[in-house]
Amino acid sequence: MNEKEFNQNKKITLEKLKRAKLENKVDKDIIQIIDILNSYEEYYTSSSCFGRLVLLELPSVGDKKNAKFLGKWHRTIKEKELIDAFKNASKGQIWFLAQAPIIHIYSKDLESGDKLVKKAVSCGFKNSGFRSVKKNIVIEVTSTERIDCPVGIDGKFYVEDEFISLLVDSANNVIKRSTKKLQKLKKELKV
Amino acid sequence: MNEKEFNQNKKITLEKLKRAKLENKVDKDIIQIIDILNSYEEYYTSSSCFGRLVLLELPSVGDKKNAKFLGKWHRTIKEKELIDAFKNASKGQIWFLAQAPIIHIYSKDLESGDKLVKKAVSCGFKNSGFRSVKKNIVIEVTSTERIDCPVGIDGKFYVEDEFISLLVDSANNVIKRSTKKLQKLKKELKV
Repeated sequence: MNEKEFNQNKKITLEKLKRAKLENKVDKDIIQIIDILNSYEEYYTSSSCFGRLVLLELPSVGDKKNAKFLGKWHRTIKEKELIDAFKNASKGQIWFLAQAPIIHIYSKDLESGDKLVKKAVSCGFKNSGFRSVKKNIVIEVTSTERIDCPVGIDGKFYVEDEFISLLVDSANNVIKRSTKKLQKLKKELKV
Repeated sequence: MNEKEFNQNKKITLEKLKRAKLENKVDKDIIQIIDILNSYEEYYTSSSCFGRLVLLELPSVGDKKNAKFLGKWHRTIKEKELIDAFKNASKGQIWFLAQAPIIHIYSKDLESGDKLVKKAVSCGFKNSGFRSVKKNIVIEVTSTERIDCPVGIDGKFYVEDEFISLLVDSANNVIKRSTKKLQKLKKELKV
């Protein structure tokens, strides 16, 4: 892709982002870092997520397409919130997930992309890399900590009180560590 | 890196692989696909894993460096095996993990790397991408299904029988799906 095309695509993408912000469709805790990245002429961001805790119901094993959200939080939670979300379960496998931030960035060239990946890795986003390098150069910034845990079937919970407490503590820890890493990256990008 | 350096590095790496194979240090279920990849002049493999089920004890939160393996299996398991492995727990958080295959491949150029990433994604290894694109072009082939689940603390288990059964079923499912994806990729690479 040449520079003109890159700049055109950046312009279109930033217009979309502007609308999404007005409609509150962008995770607020990730807006600052997205804005910093977009202020660089060599980058622009596409789909990005601050990270989240999710209680999911899958109608059949692995059927993520038809998954139903029983609960979704872009922040730390209390045990009661998870227990309350459980109450909406009816049919299928129930999974609890804690997901780290994911930021997708288009880069003007490989050199600039490489710099950004190295910076992200040094801030703790150790799973960062290039998703695509040919027509578009697309970087994914993300880290390794996560929870992916089956917790019940057909409305029935297989987890006891002590375990819920452990699960929520561990999940909140993913959010806390993610927040710290984002702050570190924000600082690095401002230098 | 020029072609001469690439070929030299490939030669050294394949010598190491040969020794590792003799010492049974390479997961046997991944050897075939590694050999196919290394038969292409534009690729060579480095560290690779068939995928595994792991019961881990972390002395403190996130301290993966000092983690102790209570159990490790490169295959499907029975509930009793997990319960038996639990018995070795003493101090720290206990996590059960199911990990998909990870294959690292050095590529001669971006074009060949791009072809391989696309092939891997089409076979279900949807988390595949480039870990590095500058001095070395390094591809990681891996997929999304996994389990990362805290299951107890300080030798105490927080999971009941029904839950162990769900956990083992789900973990075995990761191994089964991984095996199918590897077979598909093997077939694709042979074409």
